Amino acid sequence: MLFFEDFEVGDVIELATVSVDETAIVEFARKYDPQPMHLDPAAAAESHFGGLIASGWHTCALSMRVLADWFQQAEVQGMGSPGLKSVRWLAPVRPGDVLAGRFEILGKRASRTKPMGFIEQNLELINQRGEIVLRSIGLGILRRRPEAGC
Amino acid sequence: MLFFEDFEVGDVIELATVSVDETAIVEFARKYDPQPMHLDPAAAAESHFGGLIASGWHTCALSMRVLADWFQQAEVQGMGSPGLKSVRWLAPVRPGDVLAGRFEILGKRASRTKPMGFIEQNLELINQRGEIVLRSIGLGILRRRPEAGC
Repeated sequence: MLFFEDFEVGDVIELATVSVDETAIVEFARKYDPQPMHLDPAAAAESHFGGLIASGWHTCALSMRVLADWFQQAEVQGMGSPGLKSVRWLAPVRPGDVLAGRFEILGKRASRTKPMGFIEQNLELINQRGEIVLRSIGLGILRRRPEAGC
Repeated sequence: MLFFEDFEVGDVIELATVSVDETAIVEFARKYDPQPMHLDPAAAAESHFGGLIASGWHTCALSMRVLADWFQQAEVQGMGSPGLKSVRWLAPVRPGDVLAGRFEILGKRASRTKPMGFIEQNLELINQRGEIVLRSIGLGILRRRPEAGC
């Protein structure tokens, strides 16, 4: 199991890859972001995007998926997140893209009152051409090691 | 149709409401955020959350849905978004919650080189008890009115 104490500033974890196809892009868009560039290949082809692109929220959700899978695999003792400091959608995500996750610890701070600590993290997705498509700076809450006695 | 010129700092638009139930929470979690507090009602009940809560990304996706529906209805000439300046998950979203969207213009700036402008927007979801569950400060790109001649 990995606790707050097991993460250090500068740690980088290469996460799994996740693929995205047209069906998934359209299905997400239909439910959550029904704009033509995410939903309608013909309309998207005529837009300034030049073709169907994933909703930025879909990309965020995919970044969470590769992070959550690693949390489960490594038994990271996560307690959720209060939010994000920034999100940048740096390049479009298109059908057929394969996105690799990268997780980096930017900062950490123990709670003064509870047996937990806060981490500041950079979560990126990088496509098969090496382009960073998503960069999000988020906050995470992790449980302290029981032997920390706090 | 609504263009960049049609929005002013301080404008507030009350968006539609959206409901969330256990099926939707679990379905989103299974695909994008398979952590026990989002996926497994029994495990969630024993956690510090005291029951199933929606993934924060699910909440974000729902906020996009009510915004996108309004964009379509009002024919807002959106061109996407470069990202967000912050996201705060202020209260848990639980099965049965009904969330009302609220969209506010915080700032605007015309592009100097292209026929478009940038807006800074606050997008909130407020539950049936009046609690703000999500507050996100994002950036949007809107088309200029053709008669602006830029």
